Amino acid sequence: MLELKHLPVSSFNENIAYIHRDCPVYKIDNIKTMTRIEIHGGAAPVYAFLQIVDSSKIIRPDELGLNTEAFRQIGLPEGSRVSLTLTPPAPSLASVRRKIAGNILSPKEYEDIVADISARRYSNMDIASFLVAAGSFITPNELLSLTEALRGDRIIDWGSEEIVADHHCLGEIPGNKADLIVTAIVAAYGLPMPKTVSRSLSGCTGAADTMEILAGTDLDVRSLKKQVLEKRGAIVNPEGLDIAAADKIISAVEQQNGLATLERSIASVLASKMAAGITHLLIDIPVGPRARVRSTQEAMRLRKLIEYVGDMMEINVDVVITDGSEPIGFGLGAALEARDVMKVLKNKEDAPDDLKEKSLFLAGRILEFDPKLRGGQGYVVARELLKSGKALDAMEQIIKSQGKVKEQVRLGHLTRDVVADVDGTVKKIDNAFMTRLCVLCGGGQYPGAGVDLFKKTGDQVTAGDILYRIYSCNQNDFAFAGTVLESGKSGFEIGK
Amino acid sequence: MLELKHLPVSSFNENIAYIHRDCPVYKIDNIKTMTRIEIHGGAAPVYAFLQIVDSSKIIRPDELGLNTEAFRQIGLPEGSRVSLTLTPPAPSLASVRRKIAGNILSPKEYEDIVADISARRYSNMDIASFLVAAGSFITPNELLSLTEALRGDRIIDWGSEEIVADHHCLGEIPGNKADLIVTAIVAAYGLPMPKTVSRSLSGCTGAADTMEILAGTDLDVRSLKKQVLEKRGAIVNPEGLDIAAADKIISAVEQQNGLATLERSIASVLASKMAAGITHLLIDIPVGPRARVRSTQEAMRLRKLIEYVGDMMEINVDVVITDGSEPIGFGLGAALEARDVMKVLKNKEDAPDDLKEKSLFLAGRILEFDPKLRGGQGYVVARELLKSGKALDAMEQIIKSQGKVKEQVRLGHLTRDVVADVDGTVKKIDNAFMTRLCVLCGGGQYPGAGVDLFKKTGDQVTAGDILYRIYSCNQNDFAFAGTVLESGKSGFEIGK
Repeated sequence: MLELKHLPVSSFNENIAYIHRDCPVYKIDNIKTMTRIEIHGGAAPVYAFLQIVDSSKIIRPDELGLNTEAFRQIGLPEGSRVSLTLTPPAPSLASVRRKIAGNILSPKEYEDIVADISARRYSNMDIASFLVAAGSFITPNELLSLTEALRGDRIIDWGSEEIVADHHCLGEIPGNKADLIVTAIVAAYGLPMPKTVSRSLSGCTGAADTMEILAGTDLDVRSLKKQVLEKRGAIVNPEGLDIAAADKIISAVEQQNGLATLERSIASVLASKMAAGITHLLIDIPVGPRARVRSTQEAMRLRKLIEYVGDMMEINVDVVITDGSEPIGFGLGAALEARDVMKVLKNKEDAPDDLKEKSLFLAGRILEFDPKLRGGQGYVVARELLKSGKALDAMEQIIKSQGKVKEQVRLGHLTRDVVADVDGTVKKIDNAFMTRLCVLCGGGQYPGAGVDLFKKTGDQVTAGDILYRIYSCNQNDFAFAGTVLESGKSGFEIGK
Repeated sequence: MLELKHLPVSSFNENIAYIHRDCPVYKIDNIKTMTRIEIHGGAAPVYAFLQIVDSSKIIRPDELGLNTEAFRQIGLPEGSRVSLTLTPPAPSLASVRRKIAGNILSPKEYEDIVADISARRYSNMDIASFLVAAGSFITPNELLSLTEALRGDRIIDWGSEEIVADHHCLGEIPGNKADLIVTAIVAAYGLPMPKTVSRSLSGCTGAADTMEILAGTDLDVRSLKKQVLEKRGAIVNPEGLDIAAADKIISAVEQQNGLATLERSIASVLASKMAAGITHLLIDIPVGPRARVRSTQEAMRLRKLIEYVGDMMEINVDVVITDGSEPIGFGLGAALEARDVMKVLKNKEDAPDDLKEKSLFLAGRILEFDPKLRGGQGYVVARELLKSGKALDAMEQIIKSQGKVKEQVRLGHLTRDVVADVDGTVKKIDNAFMTRLCVLCGGGQYPGAGVDLFKKTGDQVTAGDILYRIYSCNQNDFAFAGTVLESGKSGFEIGK
């Protein structure tokens, strides 16, 4: 038996166990590679990957150290007596190897893979291997199996509600935070919408980051249910909800290496929305030459896939294909996006029109999930709810209920203006370039960082006009953003 | 600036940097995921992945901790002043993503990927992603590019030697340690053979593990050259040779998750042998229903690939396809294999005949690289060198020169006999089963662990006869091996 010790190290996603090289319980001499262990003593065995420590100041020979992730999972106080056994690689890794070799996996194999990922028996390396293997070739039935496995059995129950709606945009478009406005409109109408929003993945800002400019997003299932049943809407980060655990682990790996394929995203979205108890889901696929989905043909293929999986799992899905050719709204980055969202909800004159129109279109489609609304009425009702201020009221109630943020986030103190070098009209804005710029200037990490667009496609510009302003919160990020601009590119195409 | 501290933690392969959450130099609040940093202060920047520490007992806020791997690489004493900057993901990861999407990469892209891996800018997760992506689809020209990149520019120079020979078996067959006998015969003939041998990868024992039962295998380039030029042979672990650095890093990842594809193995073998200055290479592809290569057709495909890459890179390759249907020799596991090898070299009556014949065949093919030998003479000369004891002399000189091991390894103290349950003839022995058994009983980690075969295919058995004996060095491994046997399977097929 060894004495449990918390080694307060955050390793992001992996459970790590530390043992001393002279550990009397397990002879370490022969460990030449990453070794998997099983720790006994808690309610259930905890799996971890072993690292060897050569100093008793960190771990004594009679101690077993766990990093923060593993210590939290084992749920025992320091000093508890635990034992360890070596454990063979997770059995389902054989299925991952079969997938790598180009085979089609069975529903049971996906179930086992997902169960082993939930139990943290996969290293990040194993998860990445699975993602790449399944990403390069997956059949519709495999995608169904993966989605079912990721959803799991823990599903939020909304009682007698017949429609519980949500919306997801597949393939982030910079600046697009229609989600928040849509939720406010749908809630104002009275349909329950427990909108789950993620943090920034590959893009510059997740809707969770933007919402956190306005209110807290960490609700547990109990408070989420209470709020949605009373206020009809919520905008929450699903991290705190005890659902779709494996999906969260996989997403964290995708976040670390930018490997998310569209197929995996479909499985992830459908699984997590279904685990949240959603009955009606609107999926928006923006298409553009520099968007995640680049052709209508590809978008149609994805739509069929989503419809197939959705139908088989008995969730109502409506898939819309929209224009994703340029950023939506003016601001990219949490604080700037939150500003745009509130301008639309407050019917301000300088509110970005494209964000408003997109929000109304999407909200209209969701309202039409209600059988009482006639075809085409959704948009009209949505516009009325926005114009009358009822959507703003709904958002204010959501903010109040989730806990208004006390301190206003300030924009980054390091700024740089990028100006037009010729006269003309803005012909194109490169989504991928703007996303990259926004990530590098700190948009993914600092809420006050981002890019504020002064011009959009179709606008007239004169040489010297500001195209956009970059905000960074530290010198490092500011310098990264600078390197992208040194190439002379601005991401804007200006023509006659 | 931060103060450098060595955190003596072995993390296997990855550079890890530890900073305190209150580090004044870099604000940590916003780090939600694995972050890549660049550490300045040493001869060259060192890349590492950041982990966050919440206790000043481990790392003070003004310190930067490096794990053993990174500390070794930076080459500075503790207390040195270093600075850190965040670094964007390695630029070549864009190529990995292109490969995942099914594209063909250019030679320059492979070069950049390999350079970034050498510089430790890839996490294990990134390397695994690359392996899976390149493993599922790679063209012959891409394989050539990968091999050239892995070989690198640091090539051991053998001066005026016209032939420098080596041999590699693609797809481990349990028990097969012909490599050691072949080296002794070729050295006895007088052709220089700096045999590089690896540690156990997916199999039960690498030839390096077996050789270490007899002698040290860690030579630097200087001692390797001296020994081969004088004694004509060496059997060394390339870990200590400063060549093909990226290949070693990639192999370590493959070792951790068993992802090695045959294509990657070809690139790895050709690259590392060429970096070792080999001019003539014999590659053996054993084929069997439970071997790594399962059909002659597949072996032929690999042969063409090897010949193509070998020809383009101007190394003489001879590829032979051999019988890989059952284990070779009696012992599986380092100590038992070393016993078999020495029995063959000593012409003992109870030496395993299949190991002897395979060694003579391979050695004969290598000897025929010598233009002075007529076709077919190689085998005869090899047999004579073995029979006369000259090969044994050569091996003893190699052992003496590399440093004879003082203490004899004892076989594991935990043993279990597996017996025949019927009378009959051994029809088949399942390679994959025996490998798995040998891995689980500790063969990959403990030199004294392994499986000793008492019967081979074609032998008569009576119910109750011992088929094989398992040796384990600890209770854990012994129990793992037991679980495989509980299914009632023995890996032997006995028929009439």
